Amino acid sequence: MILELSFISALLLILFAAAAGRFLSNVIEQPAILGELLVGIILGSFMTFATEGGASHEPLFELFRIAEAGSLFDIADIGVLFLLFSIGLELELERFKNIAVPAAEVAVTGVVLPFLLAYFTAIYFGFPMTVAMFIGASSVATSVGISASILQESGKLRTRVGTLIMGSAVADDVMGILIMTALFGFATTGSLSLFRIGLLVLGTLVFFALSLTLGISFFKKISERFSLGRENLLLLGLLVFLTFSLISEKIGLASLTGAFIGGLILGQTRFSGALSNSISLIGGSFFIPIFFVTMGMKFNVAALASAGLFTVVLILLGVFGKIFSCGASAKLTGFTNRESWATGLAMVPRAEVSLVVINFGFNQGILSSDVVSAVIAMVMVTAFVTPPFLWRVLGGYERSGGS
Amino acid sequence: MILELSFISALLLILFAAAAGRFLSNVIEQPAILGELLVGIILGSFMTFATEGGASHEPLFELFRIAEAGSLFDIADIGVLFLLFSIGLELELERFKNIAVPAAEVAVTGVVLPFLLAYFTAIYFGFPMTVAMFIGASSVATSVGISASILQESGKLRTRVGTLIMGSAVADDVMGILIMTALFGFATTGSLSLFRIGLLVLGTLVFFALSLTLGISFFKKISERFSLGRENLLLLGLLVFLTFSLISEKIGLASLTGAFIGGLILGQTRFSGALSNSISLIGGSFFIPIFFVTMGMKFNVAALASAGLFTVVLILLGVFGKIFSCGASAKLTGFTNRESWATGLAMVPRAEVSLVVINFGFNQGILSSDVVSAVIAMVMVTAFVTPPFLWRVLGGYERSGGS
Repeated sequence: MILELSFISALLLILFAAAAGRFLSNVIEQPAILGELLVGIILGSFMTFATEGGASHEPLFELFRIAEAGSLFDIADIGVLFLLFSIGLELELERFKNIAVPAAEVAVTGVVLPFLLAYFTAIYFGFPMTVAMFIGASSVATSVGISASILQESGKLRTRVGTLIMGSAVADDVMGILIMTALFGFATTGSLSLFRIGLLVLGTLVFFALSLTLGISFFKKISERFSLGRENLLLLGLLVFLTFSLISEKIGLASLTGAFIGGLILGQTRFSGALSNSISLIGGSFFIPIFFVTMGMKFNVAALASAGLFTVVLILLGVFGKIFSCGASAKLTGFTNRESWATGLAMVPRAEVSLVVINFGFNQGILSSDVVSAVIAMVMVTAFVTPPFLWRVLGGYERSGGS
Repeated sequence: MILELSFISALLLILFAAAAGRFLSNVIEQPAILGELLVGIILGSFMTFATEGGASHEPLFELFRIAEAGSLFDIADIGVLFLLFSIGLELELERFKNIAVPAAEVAVTGVVLPFLLAYFTAIYFGFPMTVAMFIGASSVATSVGISASILQESGKLRTRVGTLIMGSAVADDVMGILIMTALFGFATTGSLSLFRIGLLVLGTLVFFALSLTLGISFFKKISERFSLGRENLLLLGLLVFLTFSLISEKIGLASLTGAFIGGLILGQTRFSGALSNSISLIGGSFFIPIFFVTMGMKFNVAALASAGLFTVVLILLGVFGKIFSCGASAKLTGFTNRESWATGLAMVPRAEVSLVVINFGFNQGILSSDVVSAVIAMVMVTAFVTPPFLWRVLGGYERSGGS
């Protein structure tokens, strides 16, 4: 062992990887995330190689141990929250309200079809019903982070289609978590608890309603009365988004949804511009790249092969099911062909919620490791395949060198 | 247990504590650090109370567990590096060069007298020679963070006395680590290894010389040739200061020294202004407050009492030894009375290096836990007592509400 890796060296390696990924993305004219994910995958594969080669004291394995032990993945978790918060900050609520109905339609069709496709594929491949339900549930929720980041980079976040995608992804996240909650009840009590689902639906509605009425008017008043310095404003922003993430987690939603709602609230206040500026700086140069690189590191090449044909079918249906159901739904709601394609593509990536679902099923002893590997592969492929296509459909211009 | 604490809730609590501490500091017209430390101490005492009351599943204990498990203290560690880096960024090297001789003088007298005072006190109290040497070594190195932060807040960092203090603190850090290295050799081999010390001195000289010549001219050229966006510039800054911290660690110095040198280098380039702006924002609203709050949390009320009279004497000599030796040295070098007082006071706080020294001695089985507690108490008192007095002597104005 040449290097003795401390937390600093692990962090440094990840940030160097992020810088290399950005440079790479710039060269191949793709969004920054793609390069960051790719460099993460390379890093992760080296680590797997070093570990499986029995050289478990190699520096890269040590890095992975440090990353897994918490710190780096904790920082990556804050990175996703930053992303969602900054996206909420930039959304104009008025525009968002106008798109509510089509967004709900896209989300519902985008949940039902992929669930059924994955469920029946699993049944066809001989998996028992409970396992098939978990596989179905893990195919449902779109990970808004990647698409949102591409929308932001390509300057399409504030357009009508950008708002539709963001609205659908949020609605779809909520539905994915409702299904997961139902499965939680099913797996732990042996039956679907309608009471639990009802409670979650109620909690969600109350949370959203209070946030978007009282929350907004409260922070609007604060922003009109107080003028905060740059540092204190950023500290306030951090407190608000972490608080909303926590509330969201407590009522059974993903913390991501809370971060997004927190951003949405502050985005309607006078703090919006200055805060958005600070958040995008601190997020974009530290937390968010760490999220993408460590996400790439979680990829395991061997997992792709282990589940064979089932994995391939699951991935194909996972990709085309979303494109078709969401795209068709957008088209039927009156969007153009290009916008419908963009909507379908943007809804393809699955990540956090899917991983939570399979993790839970695995811990309950319901899912075997080949199913887990197949879903991980599906998550990685959908996350990896989306950016270049969505980028092209959105007609993204070449990325500028900074914020 | 009402709350189930995740990393997010722990982080949220720390940031709320930081905000409360800042508010408190504003009310009592003291620098922000003091409030942040105080709130940290209160938080830490509650945790100790909850733990010792046998209620080890209380939320606050859980918070401490999360903090100790790494993530929060890792973030706090980056906080100290941020602080030192931003201080390096703001220093004008020309001014720094002019003060080299008086700084070295202040540092040498400020190392020799406190070492001897602590050593002979320990001997007088009946501790064996080896233990006394560790106690002496832990009394030596000034923790530049607190004083530097006060200098920055009071707008005195760029004055002659500010430069003297920073220069002395850096020199004194290097000397403290030289003594520690000597003790490392002494404790592990049973004798002082002159070869080791020589190697470290050589490494330090080469590192400083290369950094301040080749390092500066390299990054000066980079800054003249490339214009980086805000995000990429911040990423570059992070890479530079983490790299220098790591190099510094590898040659046996504190990583803090490397962060400072990294800042000093970039501070002489065209990146200086924009980078300093970003670094102070991200550091001042996230990393640095977390450092101060968690530092306060490490304080243990019981430790103060356990070592009794020895602790009191150690603290008094720790405070007045530095004030006298450094103050007198500054006065003899031609500084005014007020400047000499400021220099003496600014050199009082001991922290990182002291904790490293006693931690090492404890792990080697040389120091018992009463000595460790006494030194921790000394560290806390010196850190806590310095700000209000230094603040007054520097004639600091009331703090503005932000950066």
